[in-house]
Amino acid sequence: MDIFESLDAIFQPKSIAVIGASNRAGKIGHSVITNLIDSKYEGPIYPINPKEEQILGLKAYASVSDVPGDIDAAVLIVPAKFALQVTKECGEKGVKGLIVIASGFSEMGKTDLEHEMVKLAHGYGMKVLGPNIVGVLSNSDKLNASFAPCLPLPGGAALVSQSGALLIAMDTSTYTRRVGFDKLISIGNMSDVDFGDCVSWLDADENTSAITLYIEGNRDGRKFMKAAQKATKPILALKSGISAHGAAAAASHTGSLAGAAKVYSAAFQQAGIVQATDLNNLFDRTLALTLQPPLRGDNLLIITNGGGVGVLATDAAERYGIPLTFAPKDVQAELKKHMPEFGSAKNPVDVTGMAGTDWYVESCGYAITHPWLDGLVVLYCETAVTDPMEIAKGVKQAIDQSGIKDKPVAISFVGGERSDAAIRWLVENGIPAYDAPDTAINAMAALREYAKIKENAAGATEYKTSGNREAALKIIEGARADGRDSLTEIEAKLVFAAYGMSVTKNILSTSEDDAVRLANEIGYPVVMKIVSPDILHKSDAGGVKVNVKDDAGVREAYQTILKNAKAYKADADVHGVVVQEMAPWGTEVILGSVNDPTFGPTMMFGLGGIFVEVLKDVTFRVTPVSPVQAKNMLTEINGAPILEGVRGEAPRDRKALADTIVKYSQMVYELADEISESDANPVLVYEDGKALKVADARIILKKK
Amino acid sequence: MDIFESLDAIFQPKSIAVIGASNRAGKIGHSVITNLIDSKYEGPIYPINPKEEQILGLKAYASVSDVPGDIDAAVLIVPAKFALQVTKECGEKGVKGLIVIASGFSEMGKTDLEHEMVKLAHGYGMKVLGPNIVGVLSNSDKLNASFAPCLPLPGGAALVSQSGALLIAMDTSTYTRRVGFDKLISIGNMSDVDFGDCVSWLDADENTSAITLYIEGNRDGRKFMKAAQKATKPILALKSGISAHGAAAAASHTGSLAGAAKVYSAAFQQAGIVQATDLNNLFDRTLALTLQPPLRGDNLLIITNGGGVGVLATDAAERYGIPLTFAPKDVQAELKKHMPEFGSAKNPVDVTGMAGTDWYVESCGYAITHPWLDGLVVLYCETAVTDPMEIAKGVKQAIDQSGIKDKPVAISFVGGERSDAAIRWLVENGIPAYDAPDTAINAMAALREYAKIKENAAGATEYKTSGNREAALKIIEGARADGRDSLTEIEAKLVFAAYGMSVTKNILSTSEDDAVRLANEIGYPVVMKIVSPDILHKSDAGGVKVNVKDDAGVREAYQTILKNAKAYKADADVHGVVVQEMAPWGTEVILGSVNDPTFGPTMMFGLGGIFVEVLKDVTFRVTPVSPVQAKNMLTEINGAPILEGVRGEAPRDRKALADTIVKYSQMVYELADEISESDANPVLVYEDGKALKVADARIILKKK
Repeated sequence: MDIFESLDAIFQPKSIAVIGASNRAGKIGHSVITNLIDSKYEGPIYPINPKEEQILGLKAYASVSDVPGDIDAAVLIVPAKFALQVTKECGEKGVKGLIVIASGFSEMGKTDLEHEMVKLAHGYGMKVLGPNIVGVLSNSDKLNASFAPCLPLPGGAALVSQSGALLIAMDTSTYTRRVGFDKLISIGNMSDVDFGDCVSWLDADENTSAITLYIEGNRDGRKFMKAAQKATKPILALKSGISAHGAAAAASHTGSLAGAAKVYSAAFQQAGIVQATDLNNLFDRTLALTLQPPLRGDNLLIITNGGGVGVLATDAAERYGIPLTFAPKDVQAELKKHMPEFGSAKNPVDVTGMAGTDWYVESCGYAITHPWLDGLVVLYCETAVTDPMEIAKGVKQAIDQSGIKDKPVAISFVGGERSDAAIRWLVENGIPAYDAPDTAINAMAALREYAKIKENAAGATEYKTSGNREAALKIIEGARADGRDSLTEIEAKLVFAAYGMSVTKNILSTSEDDAVRLANEIGYPVVMKIVSPDILHKSDAGGVKVNVKDDAGVREAYQTILKNAKAYKADADVHGVVVQEMAPWGTEVILGSVNDPTFGPTMMFGLGGIFVEVLKDVTFRVTPVSPVQAKNMLTEINGAPILEGVRGEAPRDRKALADTIVKYSQMVYELADEISESDANPVLVYEDGKALKVADARIILKKK
Repeated sequence: MDIFESLDAIFQPKSIAVIGASNRAGKIGHSVITNLIDSKYEGPIYPINPKEEQILGLKAYASVSDVPGDIDAAVLIVPAKFALQVTKECGEKGVKGLIVIASGFSEMGKTDLEHEMVKLAHGYGMKVLGPNIVGVLSNSDKLNASFAPCLPLPGGAALVSQSGALLIAMDTSTYTRRVGFDKLISIGNMSDVDFGDCVSWLDADENTSAITLYIEGNRDGRKFMKAAQKATKPILALKSGISAHGAAAAASHTGSLAGAAKVYSAAFQQAGIVQATDLNNLFDRTLALTLQPPLRGDNLLIITNGGGVGVLATDAAERYGIPLTFAPKDVQAELKKHMPEFGSAKNPVDVTGMAGTDWYVESCGYAITHPWLDGLVVLYCETAVTDPMEIAKGVKQAIDQSGIKDKPVAISFVGGERSDAAIRWLVENGIPAYDAPDTAINAMAALREYAKIKENAAGATEYKTSGNREAALKIIEGARADGRDSLTEIEAKLVFAAYGMSVTKNILSTSEDDAVRLANEIGYPVVMKIVSPDILHKSDAGGVKVNVKDDAGVREAYQTILKNAKAYKADADVHGVVVQEMAPWGTEVILGSVNDPTFGPTMMFGLGGIFVEVLKDVTFRVTPVSPVQAKNMLTEINGAPILEGVRGEAPRDRKALADTIVKYSQMVYELADEISESDANPVLVYEDGKALKVADARIILKKK
């Protein structure tokens, strides 16, 4: 049995056994049977309970082995201590998938039991959803295999939630918020079926039009990203716990800057996942993504009957990164015909409080067809003289009659009961409608982010190494053979060079004479630095001399550096003094990597100095980083204009910098088993065409 | 008649005349009479219409002069061309205040007519609300003197809205959102009664517990701020049009950075006004501010039955600047008693999904009384086994029984109809309750901001000049006598010095010999700069030489500077070359001022260089700036840690810097009629105790 067949059984079972079914109200085993009956589940339901003849009118069986027919999925509600036995019985019976509502596993410290259950299930080809979950709900399958009270309001979204309580609360909330879901999936401890599996399965499910995720933590980040990248449906994620993840041990700058929020945001971006900021935002964006196509350009037109909501929407558009521009002259001229003298055909188009349904209909019908327009937002303030429902129906009809289906529309009606009824009608008829102008703009922003993120993610898997992994490994093995878990600067630069990065020339001297010879070989001026695996912060130890200009200077520097090193740490293992090309001044940039517990090797980019130290102005990616993503990284930091050239300076060589990011990312990706953290700090970036130099490098190895 | 008496008449009329009342449905004059009757207004209503005997059953009069009794307020719905005549009639009759719903005034370009009407009204002691408004609505006065459909849901808030359409839409929306208002006031063109008047009047109104403002633009910013500063009730403002204001002409850095959003935010902060970010936020925060006391400390405790919503609330608390801390050990120990083994007494306190009403009641009742706690947030996820209404009532009772009234409580229930009913019940019983955890935290954030902002605003009016205004004026007059509208650097520094600021020594030389003599007087090294009112950007003109070390250097620099200046602008009026003390290096800071059309002289502070040029990391205040506010400004920029000392540097002299901000603000405040824009850039700030020096100064005069 392949994975998908087992997932089919879990999410769309043709028959279902409930192990631990009960006749006692208040028991979960009672709720699940009740819910299966109430949801009008059409397949056979087999209550399993050795002490009962019948449960809620259904024939009960002592064990799954007693069931006459095939069992597609089994819901486990037995105490954890019976889990293995029951799993075995299910396997023997030929059950295809397990929905383990039972708790008392890894969430209570019993991780081994959980692992054993999964292993046992896999032996029979069964996947395990849970344990410690609420269950599975599906409108299109008339399936409420859970102890959540009812099937959600029908709609196109599928929710996968890591919090059971939130899933139950959201279930009933779909009715009051009028946001429809086809499926609610409780994912619990994720012992086996994880977010990646759910995304893959839901993307292939014909009843799902958008996938909504509530994520607290994730196990296999890479698998999840791959599933999302492959998906053709919009995926929306709310990641909670922005401070829970904690920063990794701060052996490097990157380590101290990599928090869960930044790394998850990077992963979402690379995987083409739109983010929600909070619970309301999750519902609002789900509605838009299930009902409307992506917003493929920035030309958003707003039509309103009130200046106030128009200005609020304009502000929101700017906040969300879709600043309004005026429509072309011909559009303005045509729109002017459907408003009073004192109306405005600019953007927002203000048809004024005098506007009845006609003006809305004519403006919308015209605007949606114009090639300039990418998306339409309709705002309405309830007035005594207009009927919200009539306007809603008029706008819907105008859009339908235009035949346009690839441009999104979002609507806001501010008002009372009548407006609320119109909002409900619009949503039921496929147009996302909200009670505030900002929220309608937020809907458009979600559709715009989706379009952009998919465009960017397109190139995200592009990957062709340019590195010499063997050469790099040899250097690392050398250090390990020395019993070290960090590389010297010279070694680190050799690893960087093996991946095609431009590093400053850098040769180890072990005597004064040696140093003088090397300095002459490299060419004056030079930089000299202590080389010792025991001294990571060389400047602090007085182990660095810059701008050394001649032979005499080299000799003096050599002595001073060794003396300082001794004073700093008497028993330091000193390899010698490195003589290094003194790279000319350039814009200081920092690259770095850290191994994230969820996503593996991730990479950071930022400007050096105060930008990284004070402003923490950095951006992350999961490696490897594609050329497209590397280019995006350069524009994501607040200090981006520095690279474009400010205060009369020439633009920096961003092409070379993006290329180095790609190579760096390949290095940490391919050496994921070896490198724990790394920094290139500073990287000196020169003006366009003059490339860059990695002036200092640090690599911390994974402990083995 | 004093202003308040006329405002009393407008907002709480004892009798009312409607000039332009009509029997024809659809006419505003018909709606207003209908609404007055429907709202059960208890005073006499006098419809005025020369063509009718009766209007909607009320006796009509041809003119206000025909009305037998006194008229407190008159509502004007006549065409604009009759405005003056009607105003005169009202004045003669002894009407006390005018509510001018009529449009066709300044919004249509007829500003003179509007001014004339106000002037005429003032002659009779009448204030004018409007024109171009919806009207006035008041629940406590049973008054709907407007064409908005109904009185709003009763409550403690008063809304003053500059958008009529939004006011009407919000009116009905109060019922669906369950946020109550006592008054809705449409302020329209603000020809006379403005936001300042409304705030002052509402602060004294016993039926108002919080004041909510929707502001598009404002006229007299200072009056508004004073009214708000004096107010003892919470004020909440939504300012729309963040990009509409536009930056002033960019003759200075400050000018190009002063946008409406930043200046309004500064003014709100100084005036003790809490801000709303959007329309939903306005409703949510209004609810909290009307129902709960301020949150006087950061010790917020969250009690929840679901981990998911707990984490979301934790994230939100961090976003809103109230990061959670653990409760003291004794609190945790006590709370542990009211939850199962696997619950958590940390913060959020997770009483788990097993929690019934009891555990909620016991936890809330205990926590609210503990001295550690400043505010309480209760979260609930609807479950099948609990009754939301029972929990709502239990929590409310626990809080009531504690007798605690000075600590705020906010609640979030996520769920369906039953949770919605519980939310409504809580709100009706004085506890702000919402449908998402983030929103409950937002409510607490509003109450925290209110407490903090009031604390800060307390010192905001402190003002004692330290400047010599006469000396400064003399310098400015000298420049004006020259026909100039900008000061030279020397003049500008003299003005700065007159206000007690420390500037670099700076003397004009008009010959090489002169320059050498001055350089010796000041002491080497020196800086030399061109002095010409025609050359504002001295560096660009090659008009600056730094680190001039001896007499020969001075002579060479003198010649080069004059030559460069000639090449840059042949006909420049060159006053000579300034010889200046070369201040040692310090942290570069920029101070500046710009005259805002609404708030008058405002002041900016930021770090110099890329911080201001690339990152636009600056903060504003309306002048004069109090010592408390000056200190706050230093912490508001992202680069604030720079001043605290980073990378091993000593902390900068923030005391001297705050003191200079205060003095600078006094300068631009007292010379508001003279100075249009100014910059001190850079100001070099030294380490603690070593003060600072203004190294360059620029003052642009107002054109006269």
